[in-house]
Amino acid sequence: MKTYNNPERTEWPDILKRPVLNNRDVDSIVGPVLNNVREKGDEALIKYTLEFDKVELKNLQVSEEEFIEAGQHVDSELKLAIEHASENIRVFHTAQQLKTEKIETSPGVICWQKPVAIEKVGLYIPGGSAPLFSTVLMLVIPARIAGCTEIILCTPPGKDGKIHPAVLYAAKINGITRVFKIGGAQAVAAMAFGTETIPKVHKIFGPGNQYVTAAKQMVSRGDVAIDMPAGPSELAVIADESAHIEYVAADLLSQAEHGTDSQVLLFTTSKKIADRLPEEVNRQLKHLPRKNIAQVSLENSRIIMMKEAGVLMDMVNEYAPEHLIIASDNPDVFAEKIINAGSVFIGHFTPESAGDYMSGTNHTLPTNGYAKAYSGVNIDSFIRKITFQQISKQGIANIGRDIMKMAAAEELDAHKNAVAIRLF
Amino acid sequence: MKTYNNPERTEWPDILKRPVLNNRDVDSIVGPVLNNVREKGDEALIKYTLEFDKVELKNLQVSEEEFIEAGQHVDSELKLAIEHASENIRVFHTAQQLKTEKIETSPGVICWQKPVAIEKVGLYIPGGSAPLFSTVLMLVIPARIAGCTEIILCTPPGKDGKIHPAVLYAAKINGITRVFKIGGAQAVAAMAFGTETIPKVHKIFGPGNQYVTAAKQMVSRGDVAIDMPAGPSELAVIADESAHIEYVAADLLSQAEHGTDSQVLLFTTSKKIADRLPEEVNRQLKHLPRKNIAQVSLENSRIIMMKEAGVLMDMVNEYAPEHLIIASDNPDVFAEKIINAGSVFIGHFTPESAGDYMSGTNHTLPTNGYAKAYSGVNIDSFIRKITFQQISKQGIANIGRDIMKMAAAEELDAHKNAVAIRLF
Repeated sequence: MKTYNNPERTEWPDILKRPVLNNRDVDSIVGPVLNNVREKGDEALIKYTLEFDKVELKNLQVSEEEFIEAGQHVDSELKLAIEHASENIRVFHTAQQLKTEKIETSPGVICWQKPVAIEKVGLYIPGGSAPLFSTVLMLVIPARIAGCTEIILCTPPGKDGKIHPAVLYAAKINGITRVFKIGGAQAVAAMAFGTETIPKVHKIFGPGNQYVTAAKQMVSRGDVAIDMPAGPSELAVIADESAHIEYVAADLLSQAEHGTDSQVLLFTTSKKIADRLPEEVNRQLKHLPRKNIAQVSLENSRIIMMKEAGVLMDMVNEYAPEHLIIASDNPDVFAEKIINAGSVFIGHFTPESAGDYMSGTNHTLPTNGYAKAYSGVNIDSFIRKITFQQISKQGIANIGRDIMKMAAAEELDAHKNAVAIRLF
Repeated sequence: MKTYNNPERTEWPDILKRPVLNNRDVDSIVGPVLNNVREKGDEALIKYTLEFDKVELKNLQVSEEEFIEAGQHVDSELKLAIEHASENIRVFHTAQQLKTEKIETSPGVICWQKPVAIEKVGLYIPGGSAPLFSTVLMLVIPARIAGCTEIILCTPPGKDGKIHPAVLYAAKINGITRVFKIGGAQAVAAMAFGTETIPKVHKIFGPGNQYVTAAKQMVSRGDVAIDMPAGPSELAVIADESAHIEYVAADLLSQAEHGTDSQVLLFTTSKKIADRLPEEVNRQLKHLPRKNIAQVSLENSRIIMMKEAGVLMDMVNEYAPEHLIIASDNPDVFAEKIINAGSVFIGHFTPESAGDYMSGTNHTLPTNGYAKAYSGVNIDSFIRKITFQQISKQGIANIGRDIMKMAAAEELDAHKNAVAIRLF
């Protein structure tokens, strides 16, 4: 971890650089996958699953028997933990539901927004080294609360042709039974275009590697929406003199273990913390099973010392971290100045792990600086706010002349006429 | 206007087809424009403005003198109408602001969403045959209410090198003074990448032709967000026996005059309305200045008769109209079944024109069936909902063991350790 001491603003862009992803190479691989799935449907899905996941599937859809079997292979303590997490996520996301309020903007002119669930959504759960059943909760629960009527889930099978039991259990207890064994760009294509087995959806959610992300961005040129682009996961920790160095190190490592392309940054006003951190990180690193991964991502990582808390926050906002921990006795000094971040963890007892699993907030968050423009997944992601207006005869009389004036000035006479015919 | 009588569901996709846009040809034109602006900045902007808008600009930015001059060229009635519209739009969008509520998901675990404005936004106002000052209001007002600190506006100049006075007036009275005379894909590129004169923004808003839309979609692969893809404007009217035929015809014409690629659909349960509509449309059409445009778009348009209101609504939802008028004495029969629409106009005295200018709802809406997944522009479009969590020592004790259980099952030991180190 390289240390920077009160860097000048001109140096910030370089220091805050993320690993660069080259879209074009990925596109040339993903493009043909999309086209093939669009043209050949299930046949292409089975072919790609053999090629990429090394398994020949007879059925793409997870069967009822497989769900039952999965339930038998999740231990009861984990089941309780998953149920506890589900409940917290449910409570927090339920509170996000929009209450419709009718607004009378002019006398006789009533306007409102009505939240209506997106009918058909597709959720993508990556495979890879670990079974991400927590991501199942983060996508399925808000989709259910929103009221989406058709929710499907795609995730790549293991080499045994099966899905990890905890993934199926997390889906099942939250009411999802249409799970398909398909991963990568081909899963995105299947949900975007539909195949014989997999229905076309209106919006695709979920994290994934650069192929999945490229596929999502490419299909979003058509009529499918996506939650957000995804990049490697990242964490910034703000620590002042009051921070507990061992907690800070543990938090940074929890992010660093995600993948070799993860990035962790420490912003600190304390020389003591900056000086002591590398040693503490190394001390804890030794005991981690994923230490080889963490070690690589720590090489992309930085310690930034800043005298002024205000300047420190400017730099944090320029980075726009996906996760931001504030390790301070007085977190509000920093928290109030946050402009760009995905999810914020306040105080000494709020590790990122809490938000990853259990606090109730969503862990599907904007990476790669996207927090400057995107929110993390929340109830809004699964609904549309359809606007309604209802105008009385008196109402149109009140606003009609001004509409006609504006329509005429925009040279849209039929617009004007649609009012005139009602007034005169 | 072709009439369809109780069409079978299998026929719906064909009947509801929109004019197809071919992205690829547009991309090959837009791609080089984006690259040139990225590399050459203002120089490229000036070159493209000469090429496409036929005017050689010395200054890209609208000067204070030009604002003052514009104010002198807008008549006082139009000024009052613009102020009236601004006020209604302000009232409706202000009511959309999120009230932060802290939720205790488990004892000692507090989570909340904080709405934070996107700092830098770029608004695009198309040029073309009519000066769309109403769109200025629809984008500027919510951006200001949300609290965006840097709001810029791009719009193509006329051949005299000027911007229409009503566009500048609408911007000025709503607090926007950074307006740039630049249109098309080059304007999108300037806002996405930044040039010597035009600052880079985090999100780009606004309608435009297929070049502007392609440019927005292409830059959104990078780190700039966009409001939504845009296509030709469209209107569906639902009319039953109680509808006033002359209002229905006027509403359909108000959409048809937008452009030759506009689409208007009438869904009706009334044979009388279906039979009489073409004649009434033709009668009103004769008097319209833009009748040549309207006539072409009416050729893409359809009358669909349905016996059953429920089936009719299924078909409307399959189309997912940008604008939807319900011309009925009992509009709720239809309104309650709406799943996919951008903005809905209820009752005989609620023409689309009202929402285009004055009711207070936003007129930047999802076209092309995007209403299945996207909302129209609203306050959410200009903010992020950043999640926060703050956990007490007792709180982490309450949820810590379950976090550790889940982290271990996902094989993420450092995640587990970040909790363990706080518990033991």
